Amino acid sequence: MYMHMSRFWLSAISCALVAAPVRADEGMWLFSSPPLDRLQQDHNAALTPEWLLHLQQSSVRFNSGGSGSFVSADGLVITNHHVGADSIHKLGDATHDYARDGFVAATPADELKCHDLELNVLVSIEDVTARVQAAVAADMPPDEAFPARRAAMAAIEQESLAATGLRSDVVTLYQGGAYHLYRSKKYTDVRLVFAPEQQIAFFGGDADNFEFPRYNLDICFFRAYEEGRPARVPHHLAWGTEAVAEGDLVFVSGHPGNTDRGRTVAELVSMRDRSIPFQLATLNRLEAVYGAFSARGPEERRQAMGDLFGVQNGRKARQGVLAGLLDPQILAAKRAEEHERRKTLEQRPAGGTSPYVRIEQAQATLDGIALRLRALEGGLAFNSGFFGRARTILRAVEERSKPSGERLREYRDSNRESLEIGLFSAEPLYDELEAVTLADSLTWLATAFGGDDELVTSVLAGKSPRDRAAELIAGTGLGRRSAGGAGAPPDHRRPLYEGGAAALAASSDTMLALARLVDGESRSLRRIAEEAEEVKRQAHAEIAAARFATEGTAMYPDATFTLRLAFGTVRGYGGPGPGRIDPITTYAGLFARAAAKRDTPPFDLPPRWQAMRDALQADAGFMATPFNFASTADIIGGNSGSPVVDRHGRLVGVIFDGNIESLVLDVAYDDRRARAISVDATGILAALRRVYRAESLVKEVLATVPAGR
Amino acid sequence: MYMHMSRFWLSAISCALVAAPVRADEGMWLFSSPPLDRLQQDHNAALTPEWLLHLQQSSVRFNSGGSGSFVSADGLVITNHHVGADSIHKLGDATHDYARDGFVAATPADELKCHDLELNVLVSIEDVTARVQAAVAADMPPDEAFPARRAAMAAIEQESLAATGLRSDVVTLYQGGAYHLYRSKKYTDVRLVFAPEQQIAFFGGDADNFEFPRYNLDICFFRAYEEGRPARVPHHLAWGTEAVAEGDLVFVSGHPGNTDRGRTVAELVSMRDRSIPFQLATLNRLEAVYGAFSARGPEERRQAMGDLFGVQNGRKARQGVLAGLLDPQILAAKRAEEHERRKTLEQRPAGGTSPYVRIEQAQATLDGIALRLRALEGGLAFNSGFFGRARTILRAVEERSKPSGERLREYRDSNRESLEIGLFSAEPLYDELEAVTLADSLTWLATAFGGDDELVTSVLAGKSPRDRAAELIAGTGLGRRSAGGAGAPPDHRRPLYEGGAAALAASSDTMLALARLVDGESRSLRRIAEEAEEVKRQAHAEIAAARFATEGTAMYPDATFTLRLAFGTVRGYGGPGPGRIDPITTYAGLFARAAAKRDTPPFDLPPRWQAMRDALQADAGFMATPFNFASTADIIGGNSGSPVVDRHGRLVGVIFDGNIESLVLDVAYDDRRARAISVDATGILAALRRVYRAESLVKEVLATVPAGR
Repeated sequence: MYMHMSRFWLSAISCALVAAPVRADEGMWLFSSPPLDRLQQDHNAALTPEWLLHLQQSSVRFNSGGSGSFVSADGLVITNHHVGADSIHKLGDATHDYARDGFVAATPADELKCHDLELNVLVSIEDVTARVQAAVAADMPPDEAFPARRAAMAAIEQESLAATGLRSDVVTLYQGGAYHLYRSKKYTDVRLVFAPEQQIAFFGGDADNFEFPRYNLDICFFRAYEEGRPARVPHHLAWGTEAVAEGDLVFVSGHPGNTDRGRTVAELVSMRDRSIPFQLATLNRLEAVYGAFSARGPEERRQAMGDLFGVQNGRKARQGVLAGLLDPQILAAKRAEEHERRKTLEQRPAGGTSPYVRIEQAQATLDGIALRLRALEGGLAFNSGFFGRARTILRAVEERSKPSGERLREYRDSNRESLEIGLFSAEPLYDELEAVTLADSLTWLATAFGGDDELVTSVLAGKSPRDRAAELIAGTGLGRRSAGGAGAPPDHRRPLYEGGAAALAASSDTMLALARLVDGESRSLRRIAEEAEEVKRQAHAEIAAARFATEGTAMYPDATFTLRLAFGTVRGYGGPGPGRIDPITTYAGLFARAAAKRDTPPFDLPPRWQAMRDALQADAGFMATPFNFASTADIIGGNSGSPVVDRHGRLVGVIFDGNIESLVLDVAYDDRRARAISVDATGILAALRRVYRAESLVKEVLATVPAGR
Repeated sequence: MYMHMSRFWLSAISCALVAAPVRADEGMWLFSSPPLDRLQQDHNAALTPEWLLHLQQSSVRFNSGGSGSFVSADGLVITNHHVGADSIHKLGDATHDYARDGFVAATPADELKCHDLELNVLVSIEDVTARVQAAVAADMPPDEAFPARRAAMAAIEQESLAATGLRSDVVTLYQGGAYHLYRSKKYTDVRLVFAPEQQIAFFGGDADNFEFPRYNLDICFFRAYEEGRPARVPHHLAWGTEAVAEGDLVFVSGHPGNTDRGRTVAELVSMRDRSIPFQLATLNRLEAVYGAFSARGPEERRQAMGDLFGVQNGRKARQGVLAGLLDPQILAAKRAEEHERRKTLEQRPAGGTSPYVRIEQAQATLDGIALRLRALEGGLAFNSGFFGRARTILRAVEERSKPSGERLREYRDSNRESLEIGLFSAEPLYDELEAVTLADSLTWLATAFGGDDELVTSVLAGKSPRDRAAELIAGTGLGRRSAGGAGAPPDHRRPLYEGGAAALAASSDTMLALARLVDGESRSLRRIAEEAEEVKRQAHAEIAAARFATEGTAMYPDATFTLRLAFGTVRGYGGPGPGRIDPITTYAGLFARAAAKRDTPPFDLPPRWQAMRDALQADAGFMATPFNFASTADIIGGNSGSPVVDRHGRLVGVIFDGNIESLVLDVAYDDRRARAISVDATGILAALRRVYRAESLVKEVLATVPAGR
């Protein structure tokens, strides 16, 4: 499934130019410069500014890493089950497992408030490139350029926030070729309305993940609230009641998280030989850790399930990118293209060091510090929710004493509310699980640098990783404990956060002490990384400028978890003849697959579906209803939950995945076999009506079906 | 569970002296020098030569990595289910899953012949130290010393085989302090008699593995055949019909695979910082691979189950050893002890380079080549049953042209029959699984050395790992295919093996070509490793000699998968008071644990047990029967299936595991919390009678209960 992987990695910011001329349905386009000509030409589609604005403002970004859309005037939001899963999971406890059992709010009063979910709706886009670039003089060294750029961006954000009250983010596009100010309306009171059972949302589990054909009801509904009442939203999508057919043009509006199409060969080789292998090793280790913990019993399984799915998903996604990078054809094409472009660029008179060389050098710097950077700043050595909170409090207090523009970027004033939502989350932490993941990550730290390394011995403080983890968890009060922790300090996040330096100095919290112990090295590693990234940013900007000059602006920037418009056609693949895969599956296919797999997990249906199996199978109309469909739209992790609309702007599906061949889209678009996969909107309606009898929900989403826009 | 991990690693031969004076029930003793005085003194037990010989010749070694014992005069053997699992698994196909469903041979004619199982019974032990040492002159460099020693060992083995017809192995003990000739009777026609369902054999799965209290019927029965009839064996154990009680003295006779108690600090640090982290990363990766394949469906699960359990088991075992090495107390004790011993040794006049320094240097050499050695000679880069067969055929043909004593050790004449049993196994190979594991290991190879490495590009031959794996598997005929492989070459293992160099040269088998491609580098890496091991062997022998001189011979060598005698007492741990764990569990405990875990896998009972649940729970006698018990006996992986006998030599249990605290026994004995875990012999009888109604089996094992020996 398609998620934005912000949780496990310090994701190197990577937005660069796309490679080669765009093909067919390629592109993750900015709403501010949609490919109008190509749509007109290839698909005879004329998009109006109103059409675009309506889709843009109906689209929703989830801070947990995903996309969604408004589907009623009362703030009802549809997204994927796996996008909502983190929030759904956190609402549970030892006697409620909403992820496993599903959830239906019978009345608005029953809707459950999420612990730390924030939704954003993009209201406006403003080009601020000139102002950001003006802050950085042409000959500034990176250790001055980076802070200067950061300060300029923070100032723009702060002014905008003060002027509009809207969340304001300056986003870097074309790897520094452009800077846009995105203003978003923020919803922080978000409640769970409906979720099906995990087992039908993720039918086929890890085995079928990133595969097609598929049979997943991977959706759930939330509702945005304002002042304690359902938010009245100005835009929402009409629900399409006609199923898509092969060949239909569809649009996807969502937040692709990260692509690497504009990276240079040196960067791609580093990904192939270094960062992805490292990520995979980490994911494999975490899969074993969460898998073993889950196997201890049903309650342990509930606690670790979200993390387990997350790492399995990440593992399969990274394997797909790696497979692409190990495909000699893909890298050969990248090499040939770069060779041409480089020749032109490096022949300029008095050009100084080639930007390609500067990128290579900066990449070598990053590779050299990568392990320690990931261990400390990336937090891989301290896999504990308590540690994350400790560091946030420590840094928030320290950074607060500086002007907003000089702080580490996440502590800038304009981000304060979002930061606090995460920090003060009511999410329960589980002592046993924390102890296991912390001991595992401390063990990893020791093996990564050797048991006699100075950092290792100071972190372990003369104890084994297991004993040290137990001690750290017993002595911290930086979170809400679910169970256990008898004798542990009470939750004192807020007094420490608000108490400032004096409160921190007086605290004996173990996790705060650990965060302080490693913060010096962690910060200095980050500084090195940020300066190397700044070198790359400037070099990429140079490459971008050269391309703008020769190829014009009909290109899109690499994905950056900002709102993008993609389009494509509903289309199967393989064949013709045997091996051909049709683009649309049905409920009949779901039951056939469960039977073929003898209902063995992960191919078992939830109890509700099992109980209704005979009745549903006797219902020919239901069985023939489209369930999932494939299209050529250009998407990637972060697009999960994106609305899929037809040319009239009506919701016809919800993106939830790509097939295995789509995973290379990270580095290059390919429409021969790569496909985006959606839950069909008519299939969703059928399940809500026939299986869940969620009449009020159906009524709400069908309330106003406009005649076509 | 306790298995000998020979499958995944090129296990560095590691047999060295034990550290520090032995404590309490410590020791994996040679049958040729049992600790008679200590047993007399501590336990008032007087072992006679007859008692020892009877136990020795009732003990059985499994070539698949485990132990067992004869329990009837007609060659009936009991071992662990998890020791037999590999053979049980290989007997299955898409319509028979004996591992999951269990197996009961109603009559002798129904017993199923295993594909490649070999059992050995140790007949005699002869000290050949003088002859082996005489072959190596004092000042020989390692590149002469190693072949000279190998040739001397091979000659002794070959003479013994010719003279006695018995399997003859010269084993290295005390890391070169002694060499013994072990002669074994070999059984190669071995048939499956009885196996319970995997789910009761391994109740609690990975979650409860290496834990206590436990509730596992981890046993199965095989029968050795000779000339098509049940073998009449001269020794077998009488079945004890009285349950053990806390405080009882017990003996364990089995084949502990490998311990590292005699390693120097430099070697232990290398294990801690290098080899174990590497092994864990590999196991984590394989766990994800086999786990993902298993999740594809029930048949895929059956195919991969054995490997999946193997890697989960290995992961937990290695984590335990690593935890021990990261415990500062353990390494501090090792350091202090070595410091003392080293001082004495290095003060000798004209001693040349200290053996500790030579070991450190040799270890550095080994560390330097470890990655490539593991990839090629260890086969980690080519995780495919076809590849293993290809290399064996290639090398067998090449080595055959040399005198036996100059060959790679596994190709010596005296080992030929055992080698062929493995090579020509009728075990089916599964194309899809092979393709997945081979693609994964080729991907790993590329990431380990970088996608542009010369070895990598020549192995991948311009293709992606996935495409290359598919091509290799489609083009090989070196195995029996279970399914798929339409168009693939037929099985031509035997014609190639027997056809010699000409047949190999004429073959276009893809896997043979791959094996040939990498064999040059692989062999030269092995040569470097063997010479470094020879340096260590000589240095360890020097350390050993110094210790023999000061401490006498009342010590035991590190485990080497040869027969050893351990002893201990049935004893609980923890407490007194809350936290105290009793040493004996019952069937009542089994049902209680299943209920507490809501029968959720891996805590679900097999259908037969579920159906009988009420009846069994109503049977107070059955419910109170001992099921598993813990003792202080000194065991390690490879001891799985070992008979546990009382002072009268009667079978009272079968070793199947150690608790989590026992995993550090690899590097140091500790009887405070470390415990060996056995299935109780009376518990086995109760299950056979009450649950499986295996009357004839019960009758056979109770046929001759001697009055006590």
